[in-house]
Amino acid sequence: MAIDTTPLSSTPRTTLRRHRERGMTDRADLYTVLDAGLICHLGVISGGVPMVLPTAYGRDGDTLYVHGSSANGAYGAADGQQVCVTVTHLDGLVCARSVFTHSVNYRSAVVFGTATMVLDEDERWQALRIITDHLIPGRWAAARQPTRKEMAATSVLSVPLTEASVKIRTGMPKDEPEDLGLDVWAGVLPVWVTFGEPEPDPLLREEIPVPAHIRDRK
Amino acid sequence: MAIDTTPLSSTPRTTLRRHRERGMTDRADLYTVLDAGLICHLGVISGGVPMVLPTAYGRDGDTLYVHGSSANGAYGAADGQQVCVTVTHLDGLVCARSVFTHSVNYRSAVVFGTATMVLDEDERWQALRIITDHLIPGRWAAARQPTRKEMAATSVLSVPLTEASVKIRTGMPKDEPEDLGLDVWAGVLPVWVTFGEPEPDPLLREEIPVPAHIRDRK
Repeated sequence: MAIDTTPLSSTPRTTLRRHRERGMTDRADLYTVLDAGLICHLGVISGGVPMVLPTAYGRDGDTLYVHGSSANGAYGAADGQQVCVTVTHLDGLVCARSVFTHSVNYRSAVVFGTATMVLDEDERWQALRIITDHLIPGRWAAARQPTRKEMAATSVLSVPLTEASVKIRTGMPKDEPEDLGLDVWAGVLPVWVTFGEPEPDPLLREEIPVPAHIRDRK
Repeated sequence: MAIDTTPLSSTPRTTLRRHRERGMTDRADLYTVLDAGLICHLGVISGGVPMVLPTAYGRDGDTLYVHGSSANGAYGAADGQQVCVTVTHLDGLVCARSVFTHSVNYRSAVVFGTATMVLDEDERWQALRIITDHLIPGRWAAARQPTRKEMAATSVLSVPLTEASVKIRTGMPKDEPEDLGLDVWAGVLPVWVTFGEPEPDPLLREEIPVPAHIRDRK
């Protein structure tokens, strides 16, 4: 896939007014943050109020996909509506000498766009493959693929990656100079997301080993 | 603090229409999911569209608090508005024999309520202490506490914990009986969030050791 180097569009809601040094404007930064995530938080307006749903997602070039059950009304209601998709990595707790200067190290992407219910069957198939392989690369090819009935039970929404805000904070606390001499420990407590040992289904046929795409998931 | 055992109110938007077995209706479940989280995703309507912001939070009894810079317009705009606060723990990737049956193990709380800008200085102080100690218990007492000027630069929003949906999925994939014989590995790949070794600020005075509330953060 060619890297789309179109700059992210700058709009009032993606222009940072605070901590501009944390803002990224490269599309590559957006892709890196999105691709490293496991789940996103999808914001929709439902019944006039905001609703924030955690869900799986995937990216194909400059399109983001989320999926859900066709029975989940929130997905149907989002078709043609403005949504917000946020992916956040919490990387560390930043402990300053003053309470006020405490922070967190993080990478976040906030995407704004109009969601579209994907109707083309080829694109739906491709989107579900991408969402599946986003969580576990190689999984789609290893598992039984969807039947026509299973496809019908699944809704796919697409969101274009044209308007987004990417923010990254790294490093140490930024205490005021007059606080540096205080008798308070300062530094970063890193936060890690890791995978544990695969736990086989008790119903698994004994002769089936843990495949490489599970064993080596990083 | 006494445990509030008032049932969570059931409303159309918190009544699960799918996977009812994953739904929790106990207030204790809500508190457990919220208290175990590090950050939340706050959904607000801004300029007529949903916006989902990752942020720190804390809980005091049946009130949830979030804070932000007074310069962040989203917080001021949320005062008196319906918001949604979602806390999600991703606990595992559930690998089924069929793509369709794949899932994730998770614990999530989705809170709906009207946000109120907290104006009382005592409650603001208490809320900031709670948010700080939520991320690192004991941190507030160990660090320099806020000045009047720092307090003025900080906005605090409260959201009542009266309407919420709590969902928990645990355990193995639930493949269809006819898929159990397939030659596909099935099971759970656990996802862990852990803390790494504390990294001291290079500007830290050398004689200050890592305190217990940092070293023992679990």
